[in-house]
Parts: sequence; C-alpha cells; structure tokens
Amino acid sequence: MKKLLASLALLPVLSFAQNKDSLMIRKFSDEILRNGKAYDLLYQLTKQVGGRLAGSPQFAKAETWGKQAMEQMAPDAVYLQECMLPHWVRGGKDKAVITSLNHKKTNRALDVVALGNSLGSNGKTITADVLMVADFAELEKRKDEVKGKIVYYNYGFNPTNLMPFMSYGETGIYRRSGPSRAAKYGAVAVMIRSLTESTANDPHTGAMAYTDSLPKIPAVAVGPRDADYLWSIKEGYSVSLKTNGSFLPDTIGHNVIAVLKGSEFPDEIITIGGHLDSWDVNEGAHDDGAGIVHTMEILRTMKAIDYHPKHTIRFVLFANEENGLRGGLKYAEQAKANNEKHIFALESDEGGFTPRGFGFTVKNKEQLSKIQSWLPLLQPYGTDRLIAGGGGADIGPLSSTFGTPLAGLIPDPQRYFDVHHARSDVFENVNKRELLLGAVNMAVLIYLVDQYGL
Amino acid sequence: MKKLLASLALLPVLSFAQNKDSLMIRKFSDEILRNGKAYDLLYQLTKQVGGRLAGSPQFAKAETWGKQAMEQMAPDAVYLQECMLPHWVRGGKDKAVITSLNHKKTNRALDVVALGNSLGSNGKTITADVLMVADFAELEKRKDEVKGKIVYYNYGFNPTNLMPFMSYGETGIYRRSGPSRAAKYGAVAVMIRSLTESTANDPHTGAMAYTDSLPKIPAVAVGPRDADYLWSIKEGYSVSLKTNGSFLPDTIGHNVIAVLKGSEFPDEIITIGGHLDSWDVNEGAHDDGAGIVHTMEILRTMKAIDYHPKHTIRFVLFANEENGLRGGLKYAEQAKANNEKHIFALESDEGGFTPRGFGFTVKNKEQLSKIQSWLPLLQPYGTDRLIAGGGGADIGPLSSTFGTPLAGLIPDPQRYFDVHHARSDVFENVNKRELLLGAVNMAVLIYLVDQYGL
Repeated sequence: MKKLLASLALLPVLSFAQNKDSLMIRKFSDEILRNGKAYDLLYQLTKQVGGRLAGSPQFAKAETWGKQAMEQMAPDAVYLQECMLPHWVRGGKDKAVITSLNHKKTNRALDVVALGNSLGSNGKTITADVLMVADFAELEKRKDEVKGKIVYYNYGFNPTNLMPFMSYGETGIYRRSGPSRAAKYGAVAVMIRSLTESTANDPHTGAMAYTDSLPKIPAVAVGPRDADYLWSIKEGYSVSLKTNGSFLPDTIGHNVIAVLKGSEFPDEIITIGGHLDSWDVNEGAHDDGAGIVHTMEILRTMKAIDYHPKHTIRFVLFANEENGLRGGLKYAEQAKANNEKHIFALESDEGGFTPRGFGFTVKNKEQLSKIQSWLPLLQPYGTDRLIAGGGGADIGPLSSTFGTPLAGLIPDPQRYFDVHHARSDVFENVNKRELLLGAVNMAVLIYLVDQYGL
Repeated sequence: MKKLLASLALLPVLSFAQNKDSLMIRKFSDEILRNGKAYDLLYQLTKQVGGRLAGSPQFAKAETWGKQAMEQMAPDAVYLQECMLPHWVRGGKDKAVITSLNHKKTNRALDVVALGNSLGSNGKTITADVLMVADFAELEKRKDEVKGKIVYYNYGFNPTNLMPFMSYGETGIYRRSGPSRAAKYGAVAVMIRSLTESTANDPHTGAMAYTDSLPKIPAVAVGPRDADYLWSIKEGYSVSLKTNGSFLPDTIGHNVIAVLKGSEFPDEIITIGGHLDSWDVNEGAHDDGAGIVHTMEILRTMKAIDYHPKHTIRFVLFANEENGLRGGLKYAEQAKANNEKHIFALESDEGGFTPRGFGFTVKNKEQLSKIQSWLPLLQPYGTDRLIAGGGGADIGPLSSTFGTPLAGLIPDPQRYFDVHHARSDVFENVNKRELLLGAVNMAVLIYLVDQYGL
C-alpha cells in the first residue's frame, strides 16, 4: 500500500483542469474495473463463436454476435459495412513425419501447422530429404542443393532482443517469403521454425504469400521443441508431408460498426477498433479477441457513465486483418468516398496483457509532446510509455488516406508470441484484470483526445 | 521494430560514463537472456523439491539443493547460517461442507484451505450455523449473534484499486486477525473469502496469528467462486468443518548464502535475496521460487561474464518468510553481532512477472534522486518506475538494524494474487522470458549500486 501512495506522490501536481479530468478518468476506470463486461464478452467470442478466419461460417457468426452485442449497448447506430473477404481453408489436418534418419527408417511425427494462404500437397504425401538452412544467406550459398528437397528454415527469435516484436520483425520474412524463395531453387516444400520463443511445442501459423511466377509449394511451421530437435539432428533425414490448403471464391463479409454521435463536432470522427477475424487453429483470444472486447467495453462504459463525446466515435470490429486487411482498406476507402474527417484512430491488436502505454504515428513532434503531457493522467492506470511509432494494420489506411494520427495500445509484450497464431491463444490465457486495464487506458486516451484534440 | 527504436530515441543522450555502463549492462542482459538458467533452476526447485514450508523435510531438501546449485556456480564461498524454524503442519486435508440450507439437508463441499499457523479441530468435525459479515464493523454490530457460530468474513479485494497490493493491504487483516476477533465473541470457527480477485476457485492460504488470551479456533480460506456462492445465499445455512493444523517443535534450518568478495570494498556488503520457503499447498513458483532463482541467476551471470564486484555481494536464500521471518531476522542479528557494514539490500518477492521497476526504502530524497538518474540505463530493459517505498520482509531487519537502503523488484502485479498462496502457484504459471527479465533488471540495479554506491 505504501508503494502506491508513494508513487502517486511523485507525480507532478495536477492543474485544475487536470483535476477535473482525473475525476472523470477515475469514473471510467471504476466503471470498467467494477462492472466491465469485456471478459464475459471474450468468453462468448472465444467459446461460443471460436476461431473465425475471414470467409468462414464462424466469421459470419462472429459478425452477428458483434452486431447484437453492440446493439444491446444502445449506441446511436450500429451498421454493417460490406467488404469482400478472402476465403482460405486449411482443408484438414496438417501432417509431417520424419520417415528416415541417417539411412534408417523411423516414424517420428512433427507438430506442424500449414502457413495461412499456403496451398496443399494436392492430396498427395510429399516425401523428400530435408535441407536445413540457418537463413536466406545460407539458402543462397547452398542453392544448388535445394532441388527436390524440403527446405527447413531454422531462423528463430533472437532471445537477446528485449522487445519480442523486434524479433517478430526480423523473422517474419521467413514465414511470408520463405516458401517462394526456396521454390525458386526447386524445393518441393518448406518448413519454418515457428515464430516464437515459447517453451511449448505448439506450432504457430500466420500469413504467407507466393510469388506468382514460381511453383506454389506447401509450407508449414514446426513447433518450437520439434524445431530444436531438427536443429539437433542437423541433416541426413527425410520427411513425409501432407497439407490441404486451398482458396475458395471470395465471400461477402462486413466491418461491424457502432456509433456515438459527437455533441460538438459530429463530423469529426474518432475510430476505435480491433479485428474480428482470427486464425482457425485457436480461439483468437489475444489476437484479436482482446481488441474486439476492448473496443466494445469502451462503448459500454461511455453509455454506462453517460459520457457524451464531443466528437463522433466509431467502434469498429474490422473484418479481415490476418490474411488480407480487407476490412481496414474498405473502411478507409468508404471514408474517402464519403469525404469524412478522421481526426484520430486507436487500435488494440497486441493482446490483452497488462497495458504499458501507447505508440503513436502522428504528424510532428508537437503532437507527440501534447500527448506526452497527458502522462500524469494515464500513469496511475499503468501507462508509462507514450512513444513514437505505432497504430498499425487495420487503421493504417486512414493514415495513408487522410494523414489521420494513429495510436496502438502497447500491452506488455513478453507473452504475446507464446500464443500468437498458435493453439494456445485461448480464453484461459487471458487474465481478466489485465484485459480490463487495457480498456481503462484506452478509454482514458480517447477521453483526452475527445476533450482536447491533437 | 519501429517502436523500439523510437522508444530508444526518446531517452536522454547518454554521457560517456553512461555509455560505458550501457555496454556493460547489455553484457549482463545478453548473458541472462541467451544463457540464463533461472528457468531451469525454477523447474528443479518446483518439480524436484516442490512445496517447502519452513521446518518441513522438503525445506531441508531445498536447502541442500540451493547450496549445491550455488556451489556449482563457483562463488568465493557458500555457507549455511543456522536459524530455528517454526514447524507448522497442515496435518491432512481441510474440509468444509454445507450440510443444511434453509432448514433442508444438503451436501455441498466448499473448496477451502486452512490458514497457515491455524490449529485444527482436534480430530472432530465442527458443525454450526454460519454468520456472514461484510467486515469487522458488521462483526461488532452483530457480536451478540456470534456465539456458537462459524463466522464467515466476505471482505474481498476492491476491484477498482489499480494496484492489487493495495487490495492485499486492505484485506490482509481479515486473514491475520479475523479468527481471534471472532473467537472473542464465541465463534467456533472462521472462514474468510480468499485474498484474491482470481476467477478460479482455488482457495488461498497465508499466515494468521492467534491472540493468546482467546480460544484458538480453526480458520480456513474459501475459494473465490464458493465465496461468491456464500455471498449469494447470504444466511440460513450450516457448515461442517474439519481442519488438522498443529505446531511441532521448532526445527533447525538455514539461510543459504553465497559470496562474491569485493575487490575494492570487501567489508561493504550488498545483499540480494529471496525466500526459500513456500506454502505447502503449491510449488512456490512465483512466491518465492522466482526470487530464489533471480538471486542465483545474478550470481551465475557475474561469474559467466567475469564481473568482479567492487563491494562484497551476498546472495541469500532466506529460510523462513511465510510464517515467521526467522531467516531475515537471523541474518540481520548475525550481521550486527559481526559488526558488518551493509550498504544496500535488494529483494525479489513479488513474483516472476515482467519487471516494471523497483521500490526503494532509502534515507532521503537525494538518494532516491540519484537512483532515479539511472532510469535511462534501466528503461531499455523494462524498468519504468523507480519509486519510494519497497524492499520488504526478509531484508527489512537490515533497515531497522543498520538503516541499510532497501529495494524490492516490482514485477507487473496484476496476476500475482491469482496464484499467491494458492495451488496454482506452479512452474507452469511462470513465463521464462518474464522471469529472466526480472533477473536482468535486478542485475543492472546491482551493477549500478556496486559501481556508484548510493
């Protein structure tokens, strides 16, 4: 107890306006922490809807759920914004088995999952020797050995990076481009080390994209412990691999949008959102169920405490981030067509962990400084970092279309890639208080932007 | 990736000395994150030793394990410091069953656990009506109704507190003193709502103490979901309760201490420590296995990177924090007897979660300001808060004996009371990276104190 009081004592003395704000902010916080529904909503989304890849029947179910749940919160409007969705299907269980090791037959299954958007092995099982490479540089060096082989990229997270997102940035290209780069030299399939530092063996899927001019070979991610095993045996083994991915025709889907109309600036729009789609292998609890229920919780809270925003606030459940970004693109396209004015957009798409702060993509240092001057109001709720850089995928097109300032919630990032795109991204791995605190900090930021603009 | 670089760019420009320090600090961090053994050591302590209440055979096993593990790290010395330990035993499974509700027989088991140090029901089952009170104020008001009843305190965590430690501070007195305060008015047993906001039903034990002049009645904590149920039925039910706690004679135990001798100031001592004992109902993974392996990891790292401290550093696995503080008291008592000079002590006893900073109990503002000037060196590793207040139980007696400045690691606190003193405090609920990052930040702080003093 002593600790918190001391911590508060260190904060700069608040001005009168800030004091009025701090009382209002406390009202948001108390309402969310006492009566918050984000955790219950997440339970519904993860357990009653479940995994909801764009285009799938589950995704349509998620749309209906999201629309009804927001309607119950009685905003000024709820509507659907149509957009076409890609429709990739996994098509069955992905399999990989080590069938021989050092010229001896063996039969060791690997825990693998096909990469999103990858095409299957046409109903056949591909059996081939494996060529392990540390990275693209080694692939280039050994390109003459690739033909007819399965290439295994062992490029993993760098454990000395303090920020796991930095590791994800460094390794992501192996998932996205690894298959085609190996196909160029005649590989028949690709396996990658899962993009994680998890100590479990769950493999991690995620989007890849083929180079159209090259053979579209199957591609899987290998569970971390199996990846360690492959690393330990190095060479001299063959793998039988079967995947079943394919694309069906695009389907109709929707961004689900709720609106609170602004009392002073109804034509100036603040957007809050997350993405409703998830991968098919899990419940999409952190990615991005958390962002969805953060968004809905802020709507619920504004109604509950009778907060009437000055600006129009849109609460957007984006339709398709994981394998296409169609939701965010449609939202910005429609905004442009309607000649809308978008003054700020905030996204939550880094999980439901304890909030540490926000990252901003803003116009200039002055704007960032203004935001940073709000730190004393945010700090009691857990925000320590108001930094440059952030606010990504779904709201990104608003920035490129209008130059809209963006922000992204920064939850503590250390556990995120344990569950990211893996079977373990389930409700049970989300903590209720951590989830609610994300909504609290987002609500505070939105309140300040609504009151004072940027 | 963008984000981290931007965040670093915001830090104040480092002076030359700080740049030298930042390189050295990076060496600590890289060694811990690349080769850290804290997680493996925690596995050994939790899975091979397990729960280790002071005085128990498992505690003796933990001492042997700790001594051997530190000896393998080849410090200048490892020794045992004898101290007498309390020896409370649970004596069997704690049971509570609702046997009647509104005059109808029923048979609903409650998930309960006897409070530490509480005495059992003498081999008998106590059956009595339950009087539920919200708090001590209600107990006083209804004192005439207490006689012959089981008192149930429903005083829970306040969810609107941002810091769970504040809630623990507010509720702890119901666990510690609730039994005797009810016994004063003739209660035959006490049940309390577990001190947690967890959404699971695990009950949470922890130390209590009887007032010697009053009857020593059995006392249990009720799992949170069962507590919600009791709250929902309010009154008109009776419970059969059986617990089996008792005290055996004190046993001999030890603080386990490793030493790196100072190269410049061998007589000036810096202490790093956690407590080796845990409750018996779990593996003591966060409480305080994390602190134990943080401590050992820093020793390992200093040897691995060949860091020779200026001051003598003692790595102390304290013998008894949970139900007696005998380890910390003995350590300070012995230090006084030996006329030692203790310049700083750092403890880790709030779990193995992502570090947020440190709390300090220091002599004056100048000392705290000096520490806060180190923030730019700590921030890249996750520390945002260097605040007044902190450094507690085990190292507390150093402060009262010598006025030694104290510090405590502040991990993110939101999940701590989910597992605190409950069955769920197991290895599986500790994240490897979060654990290692705690050791990184502690190592950095110790390095700075060793280099620059306070």
